[in-house]
Amino acid sequence: VESIEAKVRATITKHNMLNFSDKIAVAVSGGKDSISLLHILAKMECVRPKATLVAVTIDEGIKGYRDEALKIASLECQKLGVEHHVFSFKQLFGFALDELVEKKRREGDDKLTACAYCGILRRRALNVAAREVGANKIATAHTLDDEAQTVLMNIFRGDLSRLAKEKPVTDEVHPKLVQKVKPFCEIPEKESALYAYLKKVKFQASPCPYASEALRNDFRVMLNQMEEKHAGTKFTVFNSLERLRPCLQTMANTAHFGECQECGEPSSGGLCKVCELLKQLNEKKA
Amino acid sequence: VESIEAKVRATITKHNMLNFSDKIAVAVSGGKDSISLLHILAKMECVRPKATLVAVTIDEGIKGYRDEALKIASLECQKLGVEHHVFSFKQLFGFALDELVEKKRREGDDKLTACAYCGILRRRALNVAAREVGANKIATAHTLDDEAQTVLMNIFRGDLSRLAKEKPVTDEVHPKLVQKVKPFCEIPEKESALYAYLKKVKFQASPCPYASEALRNDFRVMLNQMEEKHAGTKFTVFNSLERLRPCLQTMANTAHFGECQECGEPSSGGLCKVCELLKQLNEKKA
Repeated sequence: VESIEAKVRATITKHNMLNFSDKIAVAVSGGKDSISLLHILAKMECVRPKATLVAVTIDEGIKGYRDEALKIASLECQKLGVEHHVFSFKQLFGFALDELVEKKRREGDDKLTACAYCGILRRRALNVAAREVGANKIATAHTLDDEAQTVLMNIFRGDLSRLAKEKPVTDEVHPKLVQKVKPFCEIPEKESALYAYLKKVKFQASPCPYASEALRNDFRVMLNQMEEKHAGTKFTVFNSLERLRPCLQTMANTAHFGECQECGEPSSGGLCKVCELLKQLNEKKA
Repeated sequence: VESIEAKVRATITKHNMLNFSDKIAVAVSGGKDSISLLHILAKMECVRPKATLVAVTIDEGIKGYRDEALKIASLECQKLGVEHHVFSFKQLFGFALDELVEKKRREGDDKLTACAYCGILRRRALNVAAREVGANKIATAHTLDDEAQTVLMNIFRGDLSRLAKEKPVTDEVHPKLVQKVKPFCEIPEKESALYAYLKKVKFQASPCPYASEALRNDFRVMLNQMEEKHAGTKFTVFNSLERLRPCLQTMANTAHFGECQECGEPSSGGLCKVCELLKQLNEKKA
């Protein structure tokens, strides 16, 4: 437990993730990684009393999955004395993820997976949530595994500008875009699970019912196989990206960051991804 | 057959690989890829009579494997009327690969695989061979599969300067280092095999007895699995590298290219990889 806590503290310091006066919105899904992160940050908050923690959970509207996770998240926050706020897709966008997926299925539209829609909407929801609770930082529990998977995924998809944007601390490109930090980016998923187990915290163990659709799954399996054969693989992949960082930065294309002409949220194009998605949904209806 | 030949011609033009007055040493191992390449280049030579082809085979000294490949290579060269030269590890370095591997095994030294040693020595042998036959270009039959595997391998090993050096046409960093070109870099291995099959050329089908030791094998399997699920994966990975190229170039570190203080061959360090290896072998003996 202590070694994992020390590693997280070291990661936070190394990447200059947090300041004493930060108000940090911790993205808590209810899974082992985010609950572990909440515990570690809450413990650090006791030591550094000036930073403030708020837990934020996004309720995508996935029946039989998120409802259970929500209860766990709320319980853990209560135990730790951390304020907890829930924001739902339904309230923010007018529909639950289940409804969107059901509609797409009826229309025979399988261009994007549930995970692709969810990713776009959840990113927005988290940013709006953080702003509403007055946070100036969002802490997510992305682990070393997630980061290494993302590196490979973006190389396999040829999405280099996305690759450039994946960082332990995101750039401040727009005042309305709350800066994201990833204190677990150098912690293997196994260690985060071990932490949750040792601290006997409750977490939701069952995976999202849509998760098997995700491309990410292939990379998870692949990286786990390689890690087993060649220990340290995940860290090396993560590190390769860190070393590519200076030259990738020139491809990040953050200069043109403005606001969506429709909703006013930060966007790199004229229309943000969320409004594009909503427009497309409405066109189908018409 | 015509579509593959056209693709190779297009690749050669796109990357500006060959000039009319080149003397090209084709690295012919005797496998399907190199025999197919030799056929296609020989056919082009008939059309562009000013360029000259010479076939070069490196005999690493692998019993029951290279000896068969050698016969095939020599036979195919005879059929095509292409001059054929064989250079052996034994003659260049004083020992066959089998002897080196056997020695390492006896000493219980398993730091490097046979493939790692072979890679270092073969690269040198090929360069010396090309110079001796008076070639100003070396053409190797690395396919799209090889290239995509190399990209991943270097990312997984965190070897970014090696990644930077992997190019369809290598940089001219030293007058003694013959420029290498890869006319098959955008040709999937399957198509190269199909070409050999359709042209009914002879080639050695059995793999190198040491090949199963190579890290590359894991990436071959992984990429084939991904390609099956998501067609075009290999090309996207290759293309990601091509797009990273401009910024990678700054990491290639070719500025300090000089000559090995021991043997005078081109080297990026004081001692070249080959002399390092030979020195290490002799130290063990002493």
